[in-house]
Amino acid sequence: MGRLSELFAPDTVGVIGATDREGAVGRAILENLRDEFSGEVVPINPSHDTVLGIDAYSDVKSAPALDLAVVVVPPPVVLETLRELGESGTEHVVVITAGFAETGGEGADRERELREIAAEYALNIVGPNSLGVMSTPVDLNATFGPEGALDGSISFMSQSGAFITAVLDWANEQGIGFQDVVSLGNKTVLDETDFVREWGDDPETDVVIGYLEDIDAGDEFIRTAREVTDDTPIVLVKSGRTDAGAQAASSHTGAIAGSERAYKAGLEQAGVLRANSVQELFDAARALSGLPEPDTDGVAVVTNAGGPGVLTTDAVGDSTLGMAEFSDETIAALTEAMPDEANVYNPIDAIGDADSDRFGDALELALDDPNVGSAVVVSAPTAVIEYDELAEVVIEKCEKFDKPVVTCMMGGERARNAESVLREFGIPNYFDPARAVGGLDALARYRDIRDRTVDEPERFDVDRERAREILKRVERRDDNRLGIESMELLEAYGIPTPPGEIVDDPARAREVAEGIEGDVVMKIVSPDITHKSDIGGVKVGVSDDEVYDAYEDVVARARNYQPDATILGVQVQAMLDLEETTETIVGMNRDPQFGPLLLFGLGGIFVEVLEDTSVRVAPIGERGAREMIDEIRAAPLLRGARGREPAATDAIVETIQRLSQLVTDFPAILELDVNPLVAGPDGVQAIDLRLTVDTEELR
Amino acid sequence: MGRLSELFAPDTVGVIGATDREGAVGRAILENLRDEFSGEVVPINPSHDTVLGIDAYSDVKSAPALDLAVVVVPPPVVLETLRELGESGTEHVVVITAGFAETGGEGADRERELREIAAEYALNIVGPNSLGVMSTPVDLNATFGPEGALDGSISFMSQSGAFITAVLDWANEQGIGFQDVVSLGNKTVLDETDFVREWGDDPETDVVIGYLEDIDAGDEFIRTAREVTDDTPIVLVKSGRTDAGAQAASSHTGAIAGSERAYKAGLEQAGVLRANSVQELFDAARALSGLPEPDTDGVAVVTNAGGPGVLTTDAVGDSTLGMAEFSDETIAALTEAMPDEANVYNPIDAIGDADSDRFGDALELALDDPNVGSAVVVSAPTAVIEYDELAEVVIEKCEKFDKPVVTCMMGGERARNAESVLREFGIPNYFDPARAVGGLDALARYRDIRDRTVDEPERFDVDRERAREILKRVERRDDNRLGIESMELLEAYGIPTPPGEIVDDPARAREVAEGIEGDVVMKIVSPDITHKSDIGGVKVGVSDDEVYDAYEDVVARARNYQPDATILGVQVQAMLDLEETTETIVGMNRDPQFGPLLLFGLGGIFVEVLEDTSVRVAPIGERGAREMIDEIRAAPLLRGARGREPAATDAIVETIQRLSQLVTDFPAILELDVNPLVAGPDGVQAIDLRLTVDTEELR
Repeated sequence: MGRLSELFAPDTVGVIGATDREGAVGRAILENLRDEFSGEVVPINPSHDTVLGIDAYSDVKSAPALDLAVVVVPPPVVLETLRELGESGTEHVVVITAGFAETGGEGADRERELREIAAEYALNIVGPNSLGVMSTPVDLNATFGPEGALDGSISFMSQSGAFITAVLDWANEQGIGFQDVVSLGNKTVLDETDFVREWGDDPETDVVIGYLEDIDAGDEFIRTAREVTDDTPIVLVKSGRTDAGAQAASSHTGAIAGSERAYKAGLEQAGVLRANSVQELFDAARALSGLPEPDTDGVAVVTNAGGPGVLTTDAVGDSTLGMAEFSDETIAALTEAMPDEANVYNPIDAIGDADSDRFGDALELALDDPNVGSAVVVSAPTAVIEYDELAEVVIEKCEKFDKPVVTCMMGGERARNAESVLREFGIPNYFDPARAVGGLDALARYRDIRDRTVDEPERFDVDRERAREILKRVERRDDNRLGIESMELLEAYGIPTPPGEIVDDPARAREVAEGIEGDVVMKIVSPDITHKSDIGGVKVGVSDDEVYDAYEDVVARARNYQPDATILGVQVQAMLDLEETTETIVGMNRDPQFGPLLLFGLGGIFVEVLEDTSVRVAPIGERGAREMIDEIRAAPLLRGARGREPAATDAIVETIQRLSQLVTDFPAILELDVNPLVAGPDGVQAIDLRLTVDTEELR
Repeated sequence: MGRLSELFAPDTVGVIGATDREGAVGRAILENLRDEFSGEVVPINPSHDTVLGIDAYSDVKSAPALDLAVVVVPPPVVLETLRELGESGTEHVVVITAGFAETGGEGADRERELREIAAEYALNIVGPNSLGVMSTPVDLNATFGPEGALDGSISFMSQSGAFITAVLDWANEQGIGFQDVVSLGNKTVLDETDFVREWGDDPETDVVIGYLEDIDAGDEFIRTAREVTDDTPIVLVKSGRTDAGAQAASSHTGAIAGSERAYKAGLEQAGVLRANSVQELFDAARALSGLPEPDTDGVAVVTNAGGPGVLTTDAVGDSTLGMAEFSDETIAALTEAMPDEANVYNPIDAIGDADSDRFGDALELALDDPNVGSAVVVSAPTAVIEYDELAEVVIEKCEKFDKPVVTCMMGGERARNAESVLREFGIPNYFDPARAVGGLDALARYRDIRDRTVDEPERFDVDRERAREILKRVERRDDNRLGIESMELLEAYGIPTPPGEIVDDPARAREVAEGIEGDVVMKIVSPDITHKSDIGGVKVGVSDDEVYDAYEDVVARARNYQPDATILGVQVQAMLDLEETTETIVGMNRDPQFGPLLLFGLGGIFVEVLEDTSVRVAPIGERGAREMIDEIRAAPLLRGARGREPAATDAIVETIQRLSQLVTDFPAILELDVNPLVAGPDGVQAIDLRLTVDTEELR
């Protein structure tokens, strides 16, 4: 495939299906290109010599070489056109035409074929069912939308063409500009990961934003986004967050809904800032594209009005930032510079008769304080404050200190001119302090994402071959499930299990028990019996003398419960001292988009009643595993709350990582539950195991 | 006091301290009055015959009778002026002058005196330190702010004058109008409760909104707001929500910060809709003042664009509303009316070539469905959709069905005209679907508040006199604390405690134990020893034969722990069967604004580690008590999760109500903890008690 950057910087753009016909999409695209594009525009139409007065060609073969082809021909002709483009050496194509997988049936077949042609000719195809693409540096508007884009450094992709049209109309009024814009359409060939990668490499793109309804290959997206966010922030609205929304998204694009929990975890691990609404998306994008980065979390607030100052302080309290504590020098200097009635502590209240000079003095002193990483200037209209002057003062101080400053010049008409002056300089102005602070918060959150250490999964030394052999046993089963008879699987991956053995006669049971110090636990081992305790298939605290009878008893109970159950034997296991331990659970299931999703929680009511769990997409490293523990509300119980002995969290962290490795090594494992994983002061022990295996995948 | 309605509808308004001097507050107020007011304006100035060309009077005595007096004289003259006004029969006064409690010292003394004068002459005083008041029906602008207000049905109070100036400037641009506006200032005489009451009685006020930094008398506010919200919604920003914000508020107005938890509970019990930002405040106010009420929670979404439709559906999912399920008739009719490619299930996607007629057809069919209570019309710009036309169609359907409809005509300039047409009709238009749905959500939440049953506290038949006697025992203590020796207090209020007695010799202990079936629990009773278990002061499962020794032992341990401890005896109590029970906690502490704050949670880790508690301001009735139980995350454990026997929640509900009555009957009880209150399938038992009593209050 050609580099995607060429898609956004073509010299020659062809429109296959260009037409003069009023209201036709092929005309709208040609008009947009003709009116703006800095390069050559080539209409292709089999029956006209010119289109909109531009010399046209009858087909691709006879036309000049095209750097970018925009295809608007009827659905049945699309595939043939793509082959011609492939033969002619064109690398980048936007397929505007709809009528593919989104219509089902024939359209779906057509889409499959389109994918094959793209592979055959190494075509970069945007769409089909796309509004088109834009790139402001070369004035490229290859869309059929009614609006172009202003120049800017935000690159924007959307799975909804209508969303682009709506956003551009609004953004043009707001003065928000873009670098590249892509309507992803059906994402048959190029998808969000391709554009994230491209814009990550593009020095002109300061921020990547997007509206997505699904993510095609979650694992690849995470890997790519993680790299890109090392220097370029990504902000996404992923819709279908709620059950109702997911259902609507699936009927809109046919997206297979992955779970919101998987998206949440996956996007977070990818370093993506998630916006929950259009407003949040653009508030974050404006801050990230226009403002420098705060080097510390302390925020200074400068205001001429107490009430709005308090509102702003609340907004800071709601964010990941905090109010800066001024140094003694700053307090002294502010006391000197401000009138007696002013409040020189943060928020600085320069009081109602403050003019822009006094605002400027306060802002300068605040920004000069090393404890201040960013500032909010909040002003109510008064007889003395001139917003235009204030805007100039704010810009001057920003230039001097290179710290991010946002403003709330509260008001309507009187704020408009100042607002556009500030906007030119990249400073957003909002009426609502919460939104202004939200912008600063996005800057700080991105900085933290970028600065976080790479969570490289550790490769533990494991016995992968033995694990494969154990998994293969599932082939002898009807239901693809394995249970405690496969505890060796955990041993093969270095996860501690209590001493013990599965035996198939009572005499051997006693031998095993005698080899174990103290009493033992005995459990029926049967793939057909999932709730062992409920049927009396578990005996706890069995002494050596009781082992024989216990064996007979659990087997009898199992037989009684289900006469035709396959009984693999009875597990005889050392009994843990449960006084000082906590039951935890580590589980995994596979998400259609993101793959293996690990889950951690405490056992019993914590998972089942309080739903107190954390999730991550595997593979994860030590940091991810540790975060999983820290995130649950009951985490203090593991750290020794209420006088308990703290559990060996390092051992839990290692176990989570080893399980992460296991489920990554074996995509055949569809589901897995280690429940409980008992954690004590000295380490962990996996007590029970269930998994589901895909036999096909295993071959 | 005269009725407050007269404050907002005076015939004659005097300005004491009116002046010609440029830049003076006394001039700004007079100008605002002169330019707009429909009644008579009377400047009062000791040294000028006219002010701004209006005949002036030298003092209050010589002036005509004033329905409303605005005082802008210097601080030292304010009190004298108020006395003159009182003598002259004026009832309503706005004190603009600052320099009272907010400046401390002398100002605080002056404020106390102001309050006394107000009481003496029955003066309704707004302020001091107020921006003034407005009332649009009589074109009254008695403020020194730069902007007047548009006509409307929102009445607005603010503890920050600057916030009013800022809001009006912005609201005038947005076309948002007001009925009355009050800058509360220091709230020395009239406060938020007075205006809530007044506007509740005012048929012209559709919505009460406010910006508050504190609430003076929480209990009175709750009572008043509860009544008012029976027909008028109240939406408030209460700032100082966060720790940082509370600190800023306290330095701004000197407000004693009550806890955010108390405000949250109190405002919710009062039926107030709480807004967390200025934007939320006005989004809710616009919907509540302009739209009819939804009679059911089902929302219909009609759109020409899949993506924005999904975003809207997510917003509905985030709200308290839900997506309507259309009836078969509606589906059939939509299928008939819409093109084949349209989605006729909710959200209705009328697809990209929908004109306003097709939007209208879809909206009409949706609104006609009894499962639909409200609708959102979401449109992206296309070649065929005309927003102005669409606005007319939306208004037509709204008129026909009297169901609330909000719009997201997404776009910038092209939406402006439609937006103002819709606004005239009371329909808000937003770019962001989340905000549009937020408006509908406010309507539904207010409807639910209004329709909820009154939570009348039940008066249980209790022995109040006996309770008083028990509380009085605290006078014999040094530290105002009572403990288990006062368990009879609970008995006096009908709260079950296990059979038992406090004894002071081991022989009697044995007698008591013999009278109790089964083993007993023995606890040291000492006001000086709070952590009885830690020092070995509690013995569980003591048989009759062991009682004597156990008595000696716990007393010895207590003596050993603290030789000078006062030991009141040993409690001998029946031992509960804890197998089937759950430990709960009911507590109370007093909030400076709202008074007795009840707390409920499960014992042990649930309160201490998971902080899983619910709170309410006492007194509460059955509904409130039941909500307290339902709100905690661990509530399923009481209802019989994981095969447990369900606890007798009715008994917990009754106990909470009886404790609510106890702490309401005795303001002297500053803190109280029943911990644990053991709940089993058959009822509850209070096992332990601690309380702090204010001996002054008890007299």
